[in-house]
Amino acid sequence: MEKREILSRLDHTLLKQTATWEEIRRICEEGMKCQTASVCIPPCYVKRAKEYVQGKVNICTVIGFPNGNTTMAVKVLETRDAVENGADEIDMVINLGMVKERDYARVLEEIQAVKQACGGKVLKVIIETCLLTEEEKLEMCRVVTQSGAEYIKTSTGFSTGGATFADVKLLRKYVGEQVKVKAAGGIASVEDAEKFLALGADRLGTSRLINLLEK
Amino acid sequence: MEKREILSRLDHTLLKQTATWEEIRRICEEGMKCQTASVCIPPCYVKRAKEYVQGKVNICTVIGFPNGNTTMAVKVLETRDAVENGADEIDMVINLGMVKERDYARVLEEIQAVKQACGGKVLKVIIETCLLTEEEKLEMCRVVTQSGAEYIKTSTGFSTGGATFADVKLLRKYVGEQVKVKAAGGIASVEDAEKFLALGADRLGTSRLINLLEK
Repeated sequence: MEKREILSRLDHTLLKQTATWEEIRRICEEGMKCQTASVCIPPCYVKRAKEYVQGKVNICTVIGFPNGNTTMAVKVLETRDAVENGADEIDMVINLGMVKERDYARVLEEIQAVKQACGGKVLKVIIETCLLTEEEKLEMCRVVTQSGAEYIKTSTGFSTGGATFADVKLLRKYVGEQVKVKAAGGIASVEDAEKFLALGADRLGTSRLINLLEK
Repeated sequence: MEKREILSRLDHTLLKQTATWEEIRRICEEGMKCQTASVCIPPCYVKRAKEYVQGKVNICTVIGFPNGNTTMAVKVLETRDAVENGADEIDMVINLGMVKERDYARVLEEIQAVKQACGGKVLKVIIETCLLTEEEKLEMCRVVTQSGAEYIKTSTGFSTGGATFADVKLLRKYVGEQVKVKAAGGIASVEDAEKFLALGADRLGTSRLINLLEK
């Protein structure tokens, strides 16, 4: 696969708690230089990054991240704040307690409320596959398809596991045709990246790949 | 140490991503029965728990949790939402990127903004000691003392480490007299709890202790 093709699928990501502006600025520089799909950064840096990149790369940020157990009202306010600060893409975490209670109607309601707050910006829904049963994954394929979100995303990268080949294959099979799949968490080699894309992932969330592709 | 005395220092805690209402309800029941200082639960359950406990135990929740890198505006909105839903105590996470940039003025500004949003409710400031140098810990003792927050708290329990005896001793030594210390993360035995209290902790955040004390 063409190096450029892989880069165009990357959400070049730095979400660690201690990241400084200097580190985020470097991520922005790399994203612009390598023409990644976006840079994925913490909410507190969205405004500054947006001004810095001058439209040369999309800014992606995270909502209800990484635990997903804030209130729906706060997820909506957080999304509005991120969009006002210039976010082009929003990666939200679902409420996993609601999933465990099989209250899929409320999970859907929350995703739809965040989608509305996105005001047309791209929404990716993180389902944290490592904490779900197979049945719950299938239910979430249904819910995300129904929600109108653009993407279903495997993982936050802050829980017990990241994207697996089996999960990406499963999500691709069971979400609606118009819903894209983002694999994230632990993607650490070009070979893995190619395999995730071959299995139907449209985006890859990782901080490590850009250095490997630029070698 | 009296069992009752230890229980009165506990923030009986369940913050895991997948916690259902049934699990939170049990935490509330245990908190009421054992007269813990509070139950510490995710924001999405505050309203329901508040109604459930009918004033018989304090409700504590978490803000900017666990990564601390949301915007100041969102931390303030999230705090207001929690207080409106009935939270009696607020445990917020500082912005660790600002600490790494040595921008302590902005760290202070954010804590003070959240303190104001608390409207008189107790504020605990989580500094995530496992990610800080000794110098940064001392600076945070100074900042938290200046902020007007009631507590400095060691850890979220979602990073690379929890409370240590050395850190609790250090925080107790360097924060102002009026600031209390909460030790959290990994406290798993009655002996450890007693030692943390002897070293000057006023509160302990843990989910495991109540079962040990009730045996």
